[in-house]
Amino acid sequence: MSSIKMFEKPLGMRDTFPEIYEKLELIRSTGRELLRARGYEFIKTPSVEYYDTVGKASAISDARLFKLVDSQGNTLVLRPDMTTPIARVATAKLLKEKIPQRLAYFANVFRAQQREGGRPAEFDQMGIELIGDNSVFADAEVIMTAIDLVKAYHISDFKVTIGHAGVLSCILKDYTESEAQASHINELLVQRNFVGFEEAVLTFDLPKTKSDALLSYIEEAISLPSIEAIEKYVRKNDALEYMRSLAEILDVAGYGKYIAFDFTLSSHMSYYTGMLFEVFASGSGFPLGNGGRYDGLLQHFGSQVGATGFGLRVDRVFEAMPKIEIANDEVLVLFAADRFSDALAQVQFLREQGKQVTFQSYEGIGNIEALKAQFKVVQEFNSRGARA
Amino acid sequence: MSSIKMFEKPLGMRDTFPEIYEKLELIRSTGRELLRARGYEFIKTPSVEYYDTVGKASAISDARLFKLVDSQGNTLVLRPDMTTPIARVATAKLLKEKIPQRLAYFANVFRAQQREGGRPAEFDQMGIELIGDNSVFADAEVIMTAIDLVKAYHISDFKVTIGHAGVLSCILKDYTESEAQASHINELLVQRNFVGFEEAVLTFDLPKTKSDALLSYIEEAISLPSIEAIEKYVRKNDALEYMRSLAEILDVAGYGKYIAFDFTLSSHMSYYTGMLFEVFASGSGFPLGNGGRYDGLLQHFGSQVGATGFGLRVDRVFEAMPKIEIANDEVLVLFAADRFSDALAQVQFLREQGKQVTFQSYEGIGNIEALKAQFKVVQEFNSRGARA
Repeated sequence: MSSIKMFEKPLGMRDTFPEIYEKLELIRSTGRELLRARGYEFIKTPSVEYYDTVGKASAISDARLFKLVDSQGNTLVLRPDMTTPIARVATAKLLKEKIPQRLAYFANVFRAQQREGGRPAEFDQMGIELIGDNSVFADAEVIMTAIDLVKAYHISDFKVTIGHAGVLSCILKDYTESEAQASHINELLVQRNFVGFEEAVLTFDLPKTKSDALLSYIEEAISLPSIEAIEKYVRKNDALEYMRSLAEILDVAGYGKYIAFDFTLSSHMSYYTGMLFEVFASGSGFPLGNGGRYDGLLQHFGSQVGATGFGLRVDRVFEAMPKIEIANDEVLVLFAADRFSDALAQVQFLREQGKQVTFQSYEGIGNIEALKAQFKVVQEFNSRGARA
Repeated sequence: MSSIKMFEKPLGMRDTFPEIYEKLELIRSTGRELLRARGYEFIKTPSVEYYDTVGKASAISDARLFKLVDSQGNTLVLRPDMTTPIARVATAKLLKEKIPQRLAYFANVFRAQQREGGRPAEFDQMGIELIGDNSVFADAEVIMTAIDLVKAYHISDFKVTIGHAGVLSCILKDYTESEAQASHINELLVQRNFVGFEEAVLTFDLPKTKSDALLSYIEEAISLPSIEAIEKYVRKNDALEYMRSLAEILDVAGYGKYIAFDFTLSSHMSYYTGMLFEVFASGSGFPLGNGGRYDGLLQHFGSQVGATGFGLRVDRVFEAMPKIEIANDEVLVLFAADRFSDALAQVQFLREQGKQVTFQSYEGIGNIEALKAQFKVVQEFNSRGARA
């Protein structure tokens, strides 16, 4: 313990300084305005939940949970995502009031890190959950809202890739010879390990028609301009029909140009049961955000309604956005003790005009010139008399 | 563990539903605007800190800290206050850039609870820290800002009581006969246990002049309209002179009417070394917030500069404010699948006019009438053709 220095923070924990804070605030307020205009209502849940309630259901691996123990001996977790707590709130209370529920959040979530210099252990997510609407229009709304949000941040070069857990599982089932094989290569897809996928397929000793189909599928299905291109790999099924309707709605609404299909998309979130998607800005290896339909999670909480949603990583949106310049026209009013009253009147006058004014006595400062250099405008009320 | 039900939350943890969320958001934005107009810069620190760094220094009792252990075996805490993390950030980095620093925060803090139905274990605080300015004007600025903030929330009936750790310790020293006696009755003052104070004084077996002085002091010093009234209890000293200057500045600035002096005020925060104050709304037994000078905390982090600040409890501000009504003029646009395109055009038109519009397919809803009842305005795009 003595190795911890006075100013250190836990692994992956960060401070946010004023300049970045205000830029993140702009992301927050832009998002709030857009989501509220669509009828989404913001809610907040506690940072700490029971492991048995939210921790287990969240599908974030156990090793990445921050766990603690309360005075009664219960295991608690810092929330690793917002989808699970919102599913808890919706099933416990909100769905009794109206259905569907359109809920939104801007919240920090926690994922424990094992080494320094890695990913953040605490980060902000902004997202929506549309709960209780099983229609394809709900999925379309979620994708359109994700796209409109990314556009509101002036991120011009981005792509949304959409897949479907049902289409994928149908393909994996048809071209493998056991559940174990299907599950193994699905896991490699979750990791986006395409080389591993190809290697695994070759070791499976499948009939050549099947292994050829899987190898060509892994090349082709990762970015399809239309649904039709996947048809040669998959027999007619409900999931594919669903995706056809979704694609048509998005086309009619004018969102087709932002979209590609990726039927290799699979999630470590086991509760994604239907459509799922990722949003990528060009030039970044990490998605800005992701979403999908997660009817399974609501069932975990004893509800039979469906749900769909998405979340954006605020830090990655910040990285992908054009640089924001926040105007700084702050005024510094300096005063000697015997001019307090005059100076205060001037400060009040300037603030009534909407100016940001720092009101500072000479005697409180160390280096006056260094402080003055931080402001565009400086007004001084020097002493009238001799000062001690 | 099996006793935890599906929807339960840990002791003292709360959900915030949409209506309350938006009211808290109004408190947040009003506060941000006021504080930024005074040159305060908002910062954010991690929710989790090292126990050795922030936990020990924070002066929140160990039993009320949420503790956890990281993968390296270090003890971590959920931050119990914001003053200590900001002192860490300021000394590690910000004070190298300019002095003084005016910093602000709106943040959740954590205090573990032992029983159900008690106080919240996680709550929002909004506050400022003015670091590196040792002048009495810095203390005056902090008190004036606290008052202006309370007024911005339209809390008309409130009082600020100001004390001074130095004046109090001088009185306790003069009228007791040992450090142990002084420390014992100081602890009772921290608890606001005036009955206990009187009992303790009587058991001390002090000379009658001293015990009489303490008993009359405990009656009188709790709410003094002016500094002069305390002079009969205390010899001339720097702390008293300091309070006289502070009172004069507040009077000149027109804040005298909101202020009383309470020289029995003492804090469990051992780092409060000088002036300290509390803000009370009438009708509430708990302070809306408190603040003071805490030069001792900066010294803990190896800095020689002084600091002063205050924090408001957002939940208590919310309770004390006049009821806020947030206008609800949301529009619901319902559509049949074959009218998607028409309906979307109408929705986009309404949103461009600044309306909040929920866009909902008929097929996604359970109880249509129940949903319609939630909106002031409903527009419907019924099917043109026969529907399956």
